[in-house]
Amino acid sequence: VFAHIPPHAQRISVAKKRDRHTLPQDAINALIVAHVKTGAIVVRLKGGDPFVFGRGGEEVEAVRAAGLPVEVIPGVSAALGCAAEAMLPLTHRDWSSAVSFVAGTCKGLSEQNWSGLAGHGRTLVIYMGVTCAGAIADKLMAEGVSPGIAVAVLERGTLPGARAMRTLLADLGDLVEREDVVSPAILVIGEVVLLSDAENKLAALAGRAEALA
Amino acid sequence: VFAHIPPHAQRISVAKKRDRHTLPQDAINALIVAHVKTGAIVVRLKGGDPFVFGRGGEEVEAVRAAGLPVEVIPGVSAALGCAAEAMLPLTHRDWSSAVSFVAGTCKGLSEQNWSGLAGHGRTLVIYMGVTCAGAIADKLMAEGVSPGIAVAVLERGTLPGARAMRTLLADLGDLVEREDVVSPAILVIGEVVLLSDAENKLAALAGRAEALA
Repeated sequence: VFAHIPPHAQRISVAKKRDRHTLPQDAINALIVAHVKTGAIVVRLKGGDPFVFGRGGEEVEAVRAAGLPVEVIPGVSAALGCAAEAMLPLTHRDWSSAVSFVAGTCKGLSEQNWSGLAGHGRTLVIYMGVTCAGAIADKLMAEGVSPGIAVAVLERGTLPGARAMRTLLADLGDLVEREDVVSPAILVIGEVVLLSDAENKLAALAGRAEALA
Repeated sequence: VFAHIPPHAQRISVAKKRDRHTLPQDAINALIVAHVKTGAIVVRLKGGDPFVFGRGGEEVEAVRAAGLPVEVIPGVSAALGCAAEAMLPLTHRDWSSAVSFVAGTCKGLSEQNWSGLAGHGRTLVIYMGVTCAGAIADKLMAEGVSPGIAVAVLERGTLPGARAMRTLLADLGDLVEREDVVSPAILVIGEVVLLSDAENKLAALAGRAEALA
């Protein structure tokens, strides 16, 4: 995308990293509004899809509240891009008839209501969940999801060095630690994971344990 | 996309219409496999995203079962494209923390388990639901979703002649009839609909009723 930016365009980075935002969301909204007001054409480039955990809705509201025009162009959302790379069908006639997207940031995790989103016949995709993967697994199991359901961890999906790993829900937190998984990563929970190319890290672990015995 | 097809490429249409498929899925799978076996590079072009109600998973399985290589490239899924056009954020920090996609084809609708996917704080997107919109509304209300929750009908989203309409869940079936909504259309259920540009068709109806009185 950067290659398409004309040389005379002014670029402003508001890059976010977990707990280290260059600018808070309010300041980003204000910056967009201020520049649109000058008559400039402002392109707010967001990773993934602006309307799926992208806070695009809030940025649109800010621009509209200032009485200014705005348009939204969607991209390939992270779940779709990572799933395609890992050959993981998010829905499948035989295995899953519903797919849900939630955000797994640690802040407010306990207050989030995910009841019923994961389990037999359903696919749950968790954005931004890698740093509290263990707490996410505990939360889902406490809500009745089977500890034996398949989980994929899609690290750096669609980027150089991407890794697709799978295990069972009960091992999710341990897998993330053992493999030093870092953000960005998407977690996928559901039977469709078994159809994917994600490497079975539990089998690999069992193999190592056997070799040691 | 069609403009990028080189002139020497052989094109085979397997276009599907509801209840009038040119070719059944098994025959599509067999056709893909037969052509890949000849050594040809086969591009299976699918509307929207291949892994969200696209049966891409089944086509991948068929090719792999024949021992042949396959790759999947995702597109902008219908929910994302239609939502962006209608300025409808699928998730929003203040209004919705989960978005789910299901298919609303009439066949098997009563057996589908959607419990908990719609309601306060959640967005439910229904693909292929326009022909049984009334039954979908009844199903959701029977499962406890409020008749007063906002619903958007995004007809021909991203295509010429697109219409974005909204009403309340209890009126969904009637709206589809009154407005002669035709496929393709996406249904979105949730509070985020109120943030969108979808025209309030219930208010329009109330206005007309008042004018008549």
